[in-house]
Amino acid sequence: MTASKNIVWHDASITRKEREEQNGHRSAILWFTGLSGAGKSTLANAVEDALHNMGTRTYVLDGDNIRHGLCKDMGFSDADRKENIRRIGEVSKLFVDAGTVALTAFISPFRSDRDAVRDLVPEGDFIEIYCKCSLDVCEERDPKGLYKKARAGEIPEFTGISSPYEEPLNPEITVETDKQSLGDSVAQVIDALRARNIVK
Amino acid sequence: MTASKNIVWHDASITRKEREEQNGHRSAILWFTGLSGAGKSTLANAVEDALHNMGTRTYVLDGDNIRHGLCKDMGFSDADRKENIRRIGEVSKLFVDAGTVALTAFISPFRSDRDAVRDLVPEGDFIEIYCKCSLDVCEERDPKGLYKKARAGEIPEFTGISSPYEEPLNPEITVETDKQSLGDSVAQVIDALRARNIVK
Repeated sequence: MTASKNIVWHDASITRKEREEQNGHRSAILWFTGLSGAGKSTLANAVEDALHNMGTRTYVLDGDNIRHGLCKDMGFSDADRKENIRRIGEVSKLFVDAGTVALTAFISPFRSDRDAVRDLVPEGDFIEIYCKCSLDVCEERDPKGLYKKARAGEIPEFTGISSPYEEPLNPEITVETDKQSLGDSVAQVIDALRARNIVK
Repeated sequence: MTASKNIVWHDASITRKEREEQNGHRSAILWFTGLSGAGKSTLANAVEDALHNMGTRTYVLDGDNIRHGLCKDMGFSDADRKENIRRIGEVSKLFVDAGTVALTAFISPFRSDRDAVRDLVPEGDFIEIYCKCSLDVCEERDPKGLYKKARAGEIPEFTGISSPYEEPLNPEITVETDKQSLGDSVAQVIDALRARNIVK
């Protein structure tokens, strides 16, 4: 045990503030919401890449790492969608407490579910980013072929087709992904984070 | 959008390796297991404190931030305990992917549940830390008065009293919290992490 003789430790837990100071930036939840095909994951990953290159500690939560892991027991019923978003919100809250900028990319169609996540963290920590894109454009893009299946009746309760998407009423950021370039959208988000003193 | 003209971003997601390089250390799960009162949370927090002061990105998952959040829908039945540990494992995996050293402090009495978490991450990323302490000492400490209640029959299925604790068969680290000082235990864990090249 000689090597670690000089280690320093205290009784109190490390606080979020201490982690933020260590990282040199504030933590927050960047909650990307919008229709399937609106470009949430693409934008979240591009924003993360930009933030990482600025020295920011970041993590993207999306279908790839959540649906087959934490939420693999969840289906697509209303109750399961709600529980799905609740868990993602709770995990995002842990990342924020850990001093990390958590970026989430989920359709999250219901206002009440998004607002429940907003209420989990202190005011100013939940940045709702509405990836606004017309249904026509999303359906034309149809990157996963899901709209085609939904129109054919193969997917019940598909958001935008047979299940509602409730637009954010007052999102912190609105990005019109059918009108602006990805580069402009990334810049818009980064500028908004700078204006809020989350990153420098 | 002038301020962010020079931001850099790419199509690919940021990888765990890139995060570890940014942080200057590897990520891992430090899984503290043992009886109630064995000192898991105390040791996890003291190890985190030492790691933080060494410049390591860390996060402790314990009853305080999990039971009232992510797992607030869970009780203490066998199925619920199992699901509880599963979720904590999945969240720890996300933290590891984010480049963070995740420290978890839960009794986690069943070998199969702990091994299931071990199997979630690449070999070498799951460090099982057995906080070994005799039941007598734990019961004497009884920091939360739980043993007293369990002996009085007020808590059914209490680990060590009316529900089994399955000792780790081959833990990466065994800390005898009834025999060594907290400082020595912290040093022992830090030395083991250095030996494994998780931290420098």
